[in-house]
Amino acid sequence: MDLSDMFYPKGVAVIGASNKEGKVGNAIMKSIMRKYDGQVYPINIKEDEVMGVPAYSSVKDVDDDIDLAVIAIPAKFVPQVIKECGEKGIGNAIIVTAGFREAGEVELEEKVVENANKYGVRFIGPNCLGIYNSKNELDTIFNPPERQARPEKGSVAFLSQSGAFGAAMLDWFSGREIGISKFISYGNRAGLDEADLIEYLSEDDETEIITYYIEGLKDGRKFMEAAKKCSKPIIALKSGRTSAGSSAAASHTASLAGKDEVYDAAFKQAGILRVKSVRELVVILRALRCQPMAEGDRVGIVTNGGGVGVMCADSLTWSGLKLAEFSKSTREKFKKEVESGMIPGHSSLNNPVDIVGDAPSERYETTMDIVLKDENVDALIVVFLFHSPAIEEDIVPKTVNMKRHGKPIIAIAPGGKFTQMMSKKLEDHGIPVYETPEDGVAAVNGLVKLGEGTREKEFRCE
Amino acid sequence: MDLSDMFYPKGVAVIGASNKEGKVGNAIMKSIMRKYDGQVYPINIKEDEVMGVPAYSSVKDVDDDIDLAVIAIPAKFVPQVIKECGEKGIGNAIIVTAGFREAGEVELEEKVVENANKYGVRFIGPNCLGIYNSKNELDTIFNPPERQARPEKGSVAFLSQSGAFGAAMLDWFSGREIGISKFISYGNRAGLDEADLIEYLSEDDETEIITYYIEGLKDGRKFMEAAKKCSKPIIALKSGRTSAGSSAAASHTASLAGKDEVYDAAFKQAGILRVKSVRELVVILRALRCQPMAEGDRVGIVTNGGGVGVMCADSLTWSGLKLAEFSKSTREKFKKEVESGMIPGHSSLNNPVDIVGDAPSERYETTMDIVLKDENVDALIVVFLFHSPAIEEDIVPKTVNMKRHGKPIIAIAPGGKFTQMMSKKLEDHGIPVYETPEDGVAAVNGLVKLGEGTREKEFRCE
Repeated sequence: MDLSDMFYPKGVAVIGASNKEGKVGNAIMKSIMRKYDGQVYPINIKEDEVMGVPAYSSVKDVDDDIDLAVIAIPAKFVPQVIKECGEKGIGNAIIVTAGFREAGEVELEEKVVENANKYGVRFIGPNCLGIYNSKNELDTIFNPPERQARPEKGSVAFLSQSGAFGAAMLDWFSGREIGISKFISYGNRAGLDEADLIEYLSEDDETEIITYYIEGLKDGRKFMEAAKKCSKPIIALKSGRTSAGSSAAASHTASLAGKDEVYDAAFKQAGILRVKSVRELVVILRALRCQPMAEGDRVGIVTNGGGVGVMCADSLTWSGLKLAEFSKSTREKFKKEVESGMIPGHSSLNNPVDIVGDAPSERYETTMDIVLKDENVDALIVVFLFHSPAIEEDIVPKTVNMKRHGKPIIAIAPGGKFTQMMSKKLEDHGIPVYETPEDGVAAVNGLVKLGEGTREKEFRCE
Repeated sequence: MDLSDMFYPKGVAVIGASNKEGKVGNAIMKSIMRKYDGQVYPINIKEDEVMGVPAYSSVKDVDDDIDLAVIAIPAKFVPQVIKECGEKGIGNAIIVTAGFREAGEVELEEKVVENANKYGVRFIGPNCLGIYNSKNELDTIFNPPERQARPEKGSVAFLSQSGAFGAAMLDWFSGREIGISKFISYGNRAGLDEADLIEYLSEDDETEIITYYIEGLKDGRKFMEAAKKCSKPIIALKSGRTSAGSSAAASHTASLAGKDEVYDAAFKQAGILRVKSVRELVVILRALRCQPMAEGDRVGIVTNGGGVGVMCADSLTWSGLKLAEFSKSTREKFKKEVESGMIPGHSSLNNPVDIVGDAPSERYETTMDIVLKDENVDALIVVFLFHSPAIEEDIVPKTVNMKRHGKPIIAIAPGGKFTQMMSKKLEDHGIPVYETPEDGVAAVNGLVKLGEGTREKEFRCE
């Protein structure tokens, strides 16, 4: 599924481009003109120019080659326009226009599909936001940037069955420094469906992680095939899980949500990590930016506050992760450090390791190093209650230095301004920091489950 | 349980007050001197003055009356000092010093209890942070304010079995505008226990809501009695729920966590709302600041994005809440608004009500009003995807105006900077706004469950 001329078109026609403020065709034209530096051809039957660019009555009047048409005209004209695109040799279209199957206009949508097939036009939509490609900044999203930011360049692709929710997530990612490779809102998926898009993203050089908001699949078997073949991690947020949610999904995207357990099993089989919530998705993406996946599910915890250690242990269990059992060698090392005075005698040296409230940076360093060297430990959670004056700024390089062990390290630091300032410093050096025990554990869980999924896929491919 | 002379003492002795930076007795002296304007008596056997205040060798050398002693001297001297406090007529002590039962020094702790009983000294601790009273700004917490902020005055009391976690929460509350009446970290609870403190807070005029972090109770029966008698809402975050967590709790506070289901049942019986996570606690407190409790569990949802509506419906079900079934009258009103053109025909008018992406403020206003008037609706969740240019700033007064219906209103608005700016405006006028569907639903769930608990208590008291 090579969609490169859709995402990297030589020329883009904006059908329905308009000078009128408030019209979708105006907003899309603005979005495309804002940063994209390829050739743009506004198509408008009444205007000679749109936003200073010469306009045409039809794509057929344009002499140059065009690879992509973005369509924002009333629904009833779309079948005819698709025909004209095909006749002009435009191989790709994004139909933003709504008012098709979702509004009961099933026949009109079928007519679009028929013409697209007949005249050789692949399309995304209708009833969608279209695409945002961070590489060439091709942007068909009609929301203005002052209300909905576009994230920076990055390696995460985001595929969304809901345009409005997809836009909200792009905006959310922007404020949280999660970089995007490509965003695709595919609406009614009368043309390209989620399986085609996953197949394309599997081969896309800019994409390392695929995230996906879904209410219901169009063709489960085809999707599973595409997902199984994809060697990149896929994280899915599937809603409509309860009967109330599934009725709401039926109204929203006409999705037959189906039995939730079926999705659970299918996702597991295809190596897809399923997340329960928006927050869990963001939490995991933040960890993936800078931490490796885990080789196993045994987690070591180091903390200067016992309470947060207890909450971490609870959360680990709920996530299906294991509290690592330390090796004999680790226990002996701890004993020596107690004898030397580095670790106080009243510390709790089982996992979670509670190095108590007056722990200075050196005690953290020694303890993290011992835990990470343990062959029974696959990942480390380190809790910093920065309210204790004993922790100095050198905790940042000391923690960052632990990345040499090659195991995932996730920090948890609940608090206010000082804590946020220290957390930012750790984050700037590739240690993700979370505000709550639950979020920190969700991040580790993501790294563990994605690691498992990846290994299973590799095993199947051998 | 009248502890007013402990929380509002005429004079405070700081036993172990020190001029030496880095000593706990120095940090506590600073905390007390910072804002509290009552009389302070530093007690130090070597110094003539501490921080410019005349020091005494023993409380017995002070002529004035003293109501409270804050103790931060090595553990082995504490029994003797308690005796002296009693002899001086000091009725209350906070023993910050650690190194008792939690460090294996059981006999030493028993000696403290024996002397306290013998000489008539009530105490909190040992091994605790003590108290923060926002009314008179009496503050025994040794963490410096630049690392751990003190929240503003408010009506939430926070009781914590873990000092470090309690401090983290105070710091967290400060940045989230959650005001505190009293904070109490009670450590090993060899003197006053959680039941005594709940009893005191039940009668405390400054406290309207009691929150509680707990790993294990000391005396379950006594606690239950106190909680049942308390007419104020109690929200408890109980950790050590899993076997891994409960082992960690045993190491941390020597708590026998006990069967988690037993706690669940007991809390329910005592009308205590149990939360699962730190975030859930904060989410609910933010709603309680400005919204009434709900009269029932039937929730109406209004949204301009279907996907978030679906996620809300899922979350409602998981929380045990109900998606309201609209009355006949509501359905007729909707029909009229569709006929008048206020609501478009392709809106989804079942619950969740999806007024679609181009909804302007007026459509929100009309719809919220209809939903809130429905007798089958106990609370409203309104979703704002502010990325749509159709929503203008007048959405703020229009939403705030809905408070006239007297039912809880919770908003959900995921996004970035523009969304946060709009959310802040709503929050400033008493509409709590959450970033995710899950958090918004957790907030409603809190208002519903606390409402239920309150009504059950009133019923029992009749």
